[in-house]
Amino acid sequence: MKKLVTLVLAVAAATLTMPASAQFAKPEDAIKYRKAALTVMAAHFGRIGAMTSGKAPFDAKAAAENAEIVAAMSKLPWAAFGEGTDKGETKAKPEIWKEQAKFKEGHEKLVGETMKLAAVAKTGNLDNLKLAFSSTAGTCKSCHDAFRDK
Amino acid sequence: MKKLVTLVLAVAAATLTMPASAQFAKPEDAIKYRKAALTVMAAHFGRIGAMTSGKAPFDAKAAAENAEIVAAMSKLPWAAFGEGTDKGETKAKPEIWKEQAKFKEGHEKLVGETMKLAAVAKTGNLDNLKLAFSSTAGTCKSCHDAFRDK
Repeated sequence: MKKLVTLVLAVAAATLTMPASAQFAKPEDAIKYRKAALTVMAAHFGRIGAMTSGKAPFDAKAAAENAEIVAAMSKLPWAAFGEGTDKGETKAKPEIWKEQAKFKEGHEKLVGETMKLAAVAKTGNLDNLKLAFSSTAGTCKSCHDAFRDK
Repeated sequence: MKKLVTLVLAVAAATLTMPASAQFAKPEDAIKYRKAALTVMAAHFGRIGAMTSGKAPFDAKAAAENAEIVAAMSKLPWAAFGEGTDKGETKAKPEIWKEQAKFKEGHEKLVGETMKLAAVAKTGNLDNLKLAFSSTAGTCKSCHDAFRDK
């Protein structure tokens, strides 16, 4: 748990000290970056889902390692949704910029959920991992429904 | 340093316990994932480069945070270069699969360089950071020259 907290706090600090506007030379760089961070997060989240759904054998160590990466990645994409990054190769809905408080609430909730997921994964209890995975997946979905085009 | 070592070891362990063949349903998923991981790494590495080249003001805290993310990300892409992932939307050269030992040596060197980069970044010494950045960038370049199409 200490390791996870350290990691998540480090990444949290990183995202807090660098304003989005200073991070990307062009809007398309921000879009590419946020999609990349979400792709990495989804890949590792999916490996946990394969285990919780029984499609892959449960490997507690692998689940914990994947969850730690998910928790770290969950902090990264949001700074790349700055002003002017609403056009181009993106499914981001205008609601992201119209409802900033709700969007922020959503990604902060995700960070919390992924921290819980990682903590639960470390215990090696598959039943609890199923619950935490499902809860985290629900958080993903609610933001996708609100803020991402089909 | 402890935090960095913990983080890098955690990610290293993750890549070691999950064979590449079991990680991706389709070759294109592996290709998308490795490009995404490299994109995230490059974004954070580039922020350090902006500071070491004087294009951005030196912010020791931000440099250290970026370097930590670079070090963590540097472990991820390589498991996604499994057999059958040489075709499609990729600039990967056939040499990756023909010269596996050299490829492995290259990414292991990168991991070492990024760990040094992160350790140096934590000291807050810009001159040393410039050297470490340059050395790491050289490692990127030598692998790109050998293993990535223009």
